[in-house]
Amino acid sequence: MNSFGNIFRVNIFGESHGKWVGVTIDGCPAGIDLQESDLQPDLERRKAGAAGTTPRKEDDMPVFVSGVFNNKTTGAPLTIIFENNNTRSGDYEALRDTPRPGHADFVLNKKHNGFNDYRGGGHSSGRLTVALVAAGVVAKKILKGVTINASLSEAGGNTDIEAAINKAIDDQDSIGGIVSCSVKGLPVGIGEPFFNSIESVISHAVFSIPAVKGIEFGSGFNAAKMTGSEHNDALVNDEGKTLTNNAGGINGGISNGNEIYFRVAVKPTSSTPREQHTWNNKSQSIEPFTVKGRHDLCIALRVPVVVEAVTSIALADLLLHHSRLHNQASIT
Amino acid sequence: MNSFGNIFRVNIFGESHGKWVGVTIDGCPAGIDLQESDLQPDLERRKAGAAGTTPRKEDDMPVFVSGVFNNKTTGAPLTIIFENNNTRSGDYEALRDTPRPGHADFVLNKKHNGFNDYRGGGHSSGRLTVALVAAGVVAKKILKGVTINASLSEAGGNTDIEAAINKAIDDQDSIGGIVSCSVKGLPVGIGEPFFNSIESVISHAVFSIPAVKGIEFGSGFNAAKMTGSEHNDALVNDEGKTLTNNAGGINGGISNGNEIYFRVAVKPTSSTPREQHTWNNKSQSIEPFTVKGRHDLCIALRVPVVVEAVTSIALADLLLHHSRLHNQASIT
Amino acid sequence: MNSFGNIFRVNIFGESHGKWVGVTIDGCPAGIDLQESDLQPDLERRKAGAAGTTPRKEDDMPVFVSGVFNNKTTGAPLTIIFENNNTRSGDYEALRDTPRPGHADFVLNKKHNGFNDYRGGGHSSGRLTVALVAAGVVAKKILKGVTINASLSEAGGNTDIEAAINKAIDDQDSIGGIVSCSVKGLPVGIGEPFFNSIESVISHAVFSIPAVKGIEFGSGFNAAKMTGSEHNDALVNDEGKTLTNNAGGINGGISNGNEIYFRVAVKPTSSTPREQHTWNNKSQSIEPFTVKGRHDLCIALRVPVVVEAVTSIALADLLLHHSRLHNQASIT
Amino acid sequence: MNSFGNIFRVNIFGESHGKWVGVTIDGCPAGIDLQESDLQPDLERRKAGAAGTTPRKEDDMPVFVSGVFNNKTTGAPLTIIFENNNTRSGDYEALRDTPRPGHADFVLNKKHNGFNDYRGGGHSSGRLTVALVAAGVVAKKILKGVTINASLSEAGGNTDIEAAINKAIDDQDSIGGIVSCSVKGLPVGIGEPFFNSIESVISHAVFSIPAVKGIEFGSGFNAAKMTGSEHNDALVNDEGKTLTNNAGGINGGISNGNEIYFRVAVKPTSSTPREQHTWNNKSQSIEPFTVKGRHDLCIALRVPVVVEAVTSIALADLLLHHSRLHNQASIT
Repeated sequence: MNSFGNIFRVNIFGESHGKWVGVTIDGCPAGIDLQESDLQPDLERRKAGAAGTTPRKEDDMPVFVSGVFNNKTTGAPLTIIFENNNTRSGDYEALRDTPRPGHADFVLNKKHNGFNDYRGGGHSSGRLTVALVAAGVVAKKILKGVTINASLSEAGGNTDIEAAINKAIDDQDSIGGIVSCSVKGLPVGIGEPFFNSIESVISHAVFSIPAVKGIEFGSGFNAAKMTGSEHNDALVNDEGKTLTNNAGGINGGISNGNEIYFRVAVKPTSSTPREQHTWNNKSQSIEPFTVKGRHDLCIALRVPVVVEAVTSIALADLLLHHSRLHNQASIT
Repeated sequence: MNSFGNIFRVNIFGESHGKWVGVTIDGCPAGIDLQESDLQPDLERRKAGAAGTTPRKEDDMPVFVSGVFNNKTTGAPLTIIFENNNTRSGDYEALRDTPRPGHADFVLNKKHNGFNDYRGGGHSSGRLTVALVAAGVVAKKILKGVTINASLSEAGGNTDIEAAINKAIDDQDSIGGIVSCSVKGLPVGIGEPFFNSIESVISHAVFSIPAVKGIEFGSGFNAAKMTGSEHNDALVNDEGKTLTNNAGGINGGISNGNEIYFRVAVKPTSSTPREQHTWNNKSQSIEPFTVKGRHDLCIALRVPVVVEAVTSIALADLLLHHSRLHNQASIT
Repeated sequence: MNSFGNIFRVNIFGESHGKWVGVTIDGCPAGIDLQESDLQPDLERRKAGAAGTTPRKEDDMPVFVSGVFNNKTTGAPLTIIFENNNTRSGDYEALRDTPRPGHADFVLNKKHNGFNDYRGGGHSSGRLTVALVAAGVVAKKILKGVTINASLSEAGGNTDIEAAINKAIDDQDSIGGIVSCSVKGLPVGIGEPFFNSIESVISHAVFSIPAVKGIEFGSGFNAAKMTGSEHNDALVNDEGKTLTNNAGGINGGISNGNEIYFRVAVKPTSSTPREQHTWNNKSQSIEPFTVKGRHDLCIALRVPVVVEAVTSIALADLLLHHSRLHNQASIT
Repeated sequence: MNSFGNIFRVNIFGESHGKWVGVTIDGCPAGIDLQESDLQPDLERRKAGAAGTTPRKEDDMPVFVSGVFNNKTTGAPLTIIFENNNTRSGDYEALRDTPRPGHADFVLNKKHNGFNDYRGGGHSSGRLTVALVAAGVVAKKILKGVTINASLSEAGGNTDIEAAINKAIDDQDSIGGIVSCSVKGLPVGIGEPFFNSIESVISHAVFSIPAVKGIEFGSGFNAAKMTGSEHNDALVNDEGKTLTNNAGGINGGISNGNEIYFRVAVKPTSSTPREQHTWNNKSQSIEPFTVKGRHDLCIALRVPVVVEAVTSIALADLLLHHSRLHNQASIT
């Protein structure tokens, strides 16, 4: 299902080579300041252009279809679309017979009995993340007083990102990376033990980003090697401040008032310039394969703002869910 | 929200020290063979009793409340409850003032304005996983032809699990571990790019298990250090078989017919026998703290069957969702 | 799906002749006063005993399974069960071959391929409404300041209800009735034009009550015969008070601050003492049929409290949904 | 929430005087033939133009944004938009101070703290039903073998519709009507006793259509005056055929294989040409009011195709939900 969230519900639609991609947010509170230009900073961060990113560039001009009036949200569904103006569908004709390694070409064909739009990955394309970033901007406005920052902390196994990108360009082989994300200012008490723990909803959202293969919160996989006396964070005041923060700001799935932080593993871009092999359905044999089209050498470079966006979407929904419980006294 | 799934929907209820804990499955197909004894093997695997587990032992006798008639599911909601017969609520009186480090005592108190049942963690207790295991048994029956196996592959940083447990007993300090899970036989095409990727729904479910702090699919965090030519799995036949399996059986969020595998990081049990420190709300100072009650030294020992259960629940829902699209020709 | 509501979600389970029937409420705010005895007044109103009701009497003693601690809701799922202690399953053996006219015996058998619990209608029985009434009591507590009253305004086409019942007893034939319901004190602004209009959610809930065949809000079916100048209600102050109330307190699906009222048509009890005809699957012929078991001659007598309950459930969910938008300023 | 359905989920967006209105269908099976021209017949039926309808005419040219490729649905979200090209926003400036009687102007203003798009009713406008009709065309394609027909059976209390319209034109006062709908060919076993009875989901959808105030299934409100022996429909064969059809094809909320039929009450258009009265927020007094803009004298004329559409949407979702249960044997 292409929707996420219970109260603040985000629906995305569109394909890599269709006319538009877009998003509808249902359940956005009325009265939030919003104009197209508010989206530009995050859209810019997602854009290609830097070394290691694809030469396919899109204008990414958001068009408000509904839900905004006089630069304020109205409380009605908020729909934003983006034109796809730089598509070269011819690049993808061959995919019908030779599914690209690492991509969803093969599985989508099987899943939809061959009716999927196979051009550029269709609906599964990273192009759709422009819609997530747009929704993320709105979500961040709901999360007043909360700051969410994600950045690429490692690429190709190297914390010197520039060096890693240069090496990938020299090697003409794509690379992966690690995105680190921090959330500060979230109140205590957001999230549920079952089934909507903060880790559950953030991971659900983050694994919707193409190329993500792992996530860990707080001490994460290191926790498995620690003892309880090392790992436990001692509470030191009434507000929940802890001496250490191995929990990553979350106990029992619920925010404890400390910084929430997590790390996300991004695999190397499936579309590497190197020659690979794949099955050819026509010739019924394994054949050498070289990817066509324009691609990112290190897609992880463009992922941080998307991680921020989906984290914001997930937390905005949990926060709105939470607020109705604690404002209950005043509801009538 | 204490429910999970869209078509095969699992709802859990109960508290550590209440009369019963239980689960209702809504959307379970009719005609599945089911009797209480079918649940015993998985319930046994979850039980305490081995070295490194808690001395609190429960009978864990499932009682079918509804949804089963003549040893078959009826298509109506299936409710199963378990009596809590071995509770010592007195152990937990002190928690109101001194929240246990690593536990949800502090955040639940804040979240619910002090109205939560604080005894033994209340609704956030690991006791609730007995309900997940019960639902998992039903889910496994829906996943005909699919085998799901999870096991503890590492404890306290050691792959020799027995040695790790013995060391923890000697040290009198709790330890964490890594649970590895494998899914074989899932058809191609299950899952969605947005937002219900297989990784999304499994991680959502797995992070509902208390103490889980990380998850990685296929090559996982190692993928971040690999190149595209190393990481991509070459397709070698019409059915989607690949030469390597770095993708962990999933492309674009969708099953590709190969083995799905993932690893789960479990933190050390928060209730360690060692002395710790925490905030005392009464004295308004940081004080030494020693946990009371009966606890697991390595909770990770009891987690594998729970990982299997929630994975089965997540996949049963995706599979039932998938089936309605592909049997569309015959629906009328 | 056996759940209703988005934030305040009610799940019911059980069968007419199983051990228990029950309800789980997920999303109930913490801190609401609740004890078993609070349920008695509404449970009494639903009970049989009066002239025209079934001789099958149940104790209807609610048992709190979870979600209540020290006579307050905890914020965790609230589960309440009722024992079925007055079942005579033998009465229903014959139903497998001769589906009762007006009942769901035939359709449930087809729907679930014969695996349904056919005793007394199984999960489709009016017995399940005891769970709805229990949930309604909790919902009413959330609707502080709102009063919901339903009563039987007509039975067998007669507004003198006692006379109508006496005639039915004399005739030994079951009768239907009209239940009228009024809601006062609901704030302005509850409900949505699409798709959760107040009419939509109340009708959704009310048509879950067995035997309901129609519903009309405000002027209802009479509106179809009126002109706009007759039907429109003139606004007369800032708070939304109107001179007339043909709208039944609802404009565009949203509460306007005036009394909400609606009428519900209840068909005659399907189990009439009179001889009827039905298909016999064994003999493959139409045969005379006389209903067995103990039944209500006018089920409509017991429906008003159930209408109140489901109306409360529907409105509590809408109200909690609404509150998160309008308290948005204070959420962080 | 502006979405409806669980598996076949319809989301609508847009306002009366925005750029576009539209719909996204999530969960539409792949491989269904679909082109823009398929929508024309139903869109034409909804259009204004006949005597008694508004002079505001829209082209209603559907634009496929996503989810269709080579004239087939792809299995990805299907988004269709319609341009609003005949808006006169100036007509509505006055509404901020003088809410129109019978309309949602007052309640939307209160609900959204004045941030709603008040032009022409904004998101609550009947304009949105063009999106419902579009989704209905797709739903009808899923309901293969099922025929759904709705028509206006009564207007202004008169079954001679033409005479009723002429009288309304002469009187210069708007009128209401009754829409009757019939569903033939639906298989036995669709729907659930709780909470998704066929009556529940159809009424939920139908009460989303502006101006609807009542609905009755089968014998409906007449059932309240009947006896059980009159009302019960005798089963006469193995397939569920009944001698009479007072149940309107539904028992216990589930289809029984006979014709489903129901009647819908539509109130007179709130925008009547006659002078009315309303509250003026500026002058703080009750004042005479004459509606501006272009309006339907009998909106009920345009409602039948919308009733068909939402009925199709509701039944398509129930049918897809049902099919996964009964094809369970083949899912793996």
